[in-house]
Amino acid sequence: MKSIGILGSTGSIGTQAIEVVKNFKNYQVEYLSCFSSSAEIIQQAKELKPKKVCIVDSKYESEVSNSLKEENIEVLSGYDGLNEISKQKVDLMLNAIVGADGMLPSILALENNIPLALANKESVVMAGWIMNDIRHKKKSTLLPVDSEHSAIFQCLMGEDYKNIERIILTGSGGPFRQRKLETFKDITLKEALKHPNWSMGHKITIDSATMMNKGLEFIEAYWLFDIEKSKIDIVVHPQSIIHSMVEFSDGSIKAQMGEPDMKVPIQFALSYPERYFDKIKRFSFINNNNLTFEDINVEKFPCIQIAKDALLSGGSHQVVLNIANDEVVAKFLNNEISFMDIPKIIEKCINNHNAIQSPNLDEIKNLSIWAKEYINREIIV
Amino acid sequence: MKSIGILGSTGSIGTQAIEVVKNFKNYQVEYLSCFSSSAEIIQQAKELKPKKVCIVDSKYESEVSNSLKEENIEVLSGYDGLNEISKQKVDLMLNAIVGADGMLPSILALENNIPLALANKESVVMAGWIMNDIRHKKKSTLLPVDSEHSAIFQCLMGEDYKNIERIILTGSGGPFRQRKLETFKDITLKEALKHPNWSMGHKITIDSATMMNKGLEFIEAYWLFDIEKSKIDIVVHPQSIIHSMVEFSDGSIKAQMGEPDMKVPIQFALSYPERYFDKIKRFSFINNNNLTFEDINVEKFPCIQIAKDALLSGGSHQVVLNIANDEVVAKFLNNEISFMDIPKIIEKCINNHNAIQSPNLDEIKNLSIWAKEYINREIIV
Repeated sequence: MKSIGILGSTGSIGTQAIEVVKNFKNYQVEYLSCFSSSAEIIQQAKELKPKKVCIVDSKYESEVSNSLKEENIEVLSGYDGLNEISKQKVDLMLNAIVGADGMLPSILALENNIPLALANKESVVMAGWIMNDIRHKKKSTLLPVDSEHSAIFQCLMGEDYKNIERIILTGSGGPFRQRKLETFKDITLKEALKHPNWSMGHKITIDSATMMNKGLEFIEAYWLFDIEKSKIDIVVHPQSIIHSMVEFSDGSIKAQMGEPDMKVPIQFALSYPERYFDKIKRFSFINNNNLTFEDINVEKFPCIQIAKDALLSGGSHQVVLNIANDEVVAKFLNNEISFMDIPKIIEKCINNHNAIQSPNLDEIKNLSIWAKEYINREIIV
Repeated sequence: MKSIGILGSTGSIGTQAIEVVKNFKNYQVEYLSCFSSSAEIIQQAKELKPKKVCIVDSKYESEVSNSLKEENIEVLSGYDGLNEISKQKVDLMLNAIVGADGMLPSILALENNIPLALANKESVVMAGWIMNDIRHKKKSTLLPVDSEHSAIFQCLMGEDYKNIERIILTGSGGPFRQRKLETFKDITLKEALKHPNWSMGHKITIDSATMMNKGLEFIEAYWLFDIEKSKIDIVVHPQSIIHSMVEFSDGSIKAQMGEPDMKVPIQFALSYPERYFDKIKRFSFINNNNLTFEDINVEKFPCIQIAKDALLSGGSHQVVLNIANDEVVAKFLNNEISFMDIPKIIEKCINNHNAIQSPNLDEIKNLSIWAKEYINREIIV
């Protein structure tokens, strides 16, 4: 029996993780957290009987508490509650929080030597240097959940990391891969929310449309696999069947493939080092007999270059990149800005910050506050 | 420094292995053997300074002996000589012999606990049950050199074999993939010798044209990876970029890819568990941006079904299949029979033999003699 905690249990990754858990008898869910989806977390808690749940938005605390009174489940709230949940000893803590809120829980889990399955890429984008310091000192376990990084991790099983010549991230190219740049100004929210292959949360779906997602994954790959920045490549692969690849020093390439279904990398992270049988749809090479590849069009998708530049420029650039992106995507989802504003505002925000090579947690906090305020000022203007 | 022996050193795999050896300073070639290419093995011996060489065809013994007199290299000949070479203690014995002659050297190496790199698929096709008995008892190392099986082996690194759901062998489909069945009767030797992707020896190039090669690899995969027969699939992949794949119980597929160049799997077998950097041409997903897949056309390529049936029917069927194929391919290379005669004669030969479930070495020898005689009688008629 594997004890697990799920941070962000009511989001897209969280709910799929719970489906995985329910599919097998091997898990005991001991902790759950969410931001404000009180009805959903109450239902999850009643079904899974965790020891503690946390609802970050305190205004739902009494609702959740009252509903779970008879279940003998402790209810926490606020960021303090989330931090406490993040430090609980379990066999695996899944961080499926959306956005920058996921950073501190990741750090707390690693510091407390709790094996971490990481779906929150923002953690490494905003604090990769801090997380890697802890990982190197504590030899803590970190399993990627992003399909691309799970693919890379799987390709590296049994391999010596020193033989990596190149990590090749694949990306579908999003819904606007074939759309003409001239019409990008007319892109609507509805169009941006239609991902061709993957079913994901709203924030990440917009990140796929701008291809910022691939830029953030580029940064994530750097911190997760600890390799030279020049050894990470991105190739557009519209079918999303090859989830990513590793090329080794002898010219041999390994790829991890399958139907684009997040349940596979989620289940892999939960079952690792085992693999559990699952009835998930198998990929058929006969029914899908054409895998294609393209270069990225950076002119259409400047977010990729902005992200790469942020990685090259240092820690604070990555923090500001991530916060600015979180903010502008929220504004775009709220119909406050246009699709083409997204990279422009992010770039402006990065260009205006005071750079710090490897900011500490306080500095990250201050940079985050500054970037949020900057974006909000910027957008009113 | 890794000591190695190369059996079949003057053939296609043997000479490429020597190129690999010369590329790195890590190897000491201690033993060489060939069938009759005296000039080539003399040159190799002068350059590599092995302890012993063996020329199987005794009529060249004195030529080789005289040429290597001053080098202080012992020269052996005949099958006794080959057997002696096969038992020498080295860090790795590469069996790159073409055809059935490779079987006994494989068995001798395994019996003497010498790590074996196997390019001679006939060994496992003709005596997989014997080889696996020895491997299970002695825990001997067997590294595949065939690009497909090397790919599968690489995909299985760090994985638990019990999680294999399916081994997916890829095959280019050979030079006649798109040729109409009606014109198969006109296929010439010259056409059959033109492989679209791989540069290989004559025997294996014809086996690719009939797709018997894929059938033999199907049998090879069964014995090498010790999995259920129903878990092996073949898919046609004309570009030969994906060299083979493994699908796991959770729906995840791993593929090993790269330019079709036999030097990669040869080098991998020699360097394993390391990977050595090599300047070999890298695969570009941008220049080769389309990977396609097709089902096999068994009507055009009956050899695949003949081979699968032989695996299902038991040991003697596989022995006769292999010997009959060796013989008819030699006859085809000698312009004695037509392309379409190949499967017909092999099938007839198999249908006429006295079946034995798991023949021992003596029985394999007798089956081989019987099959050769049968084919020769058959072809005169």
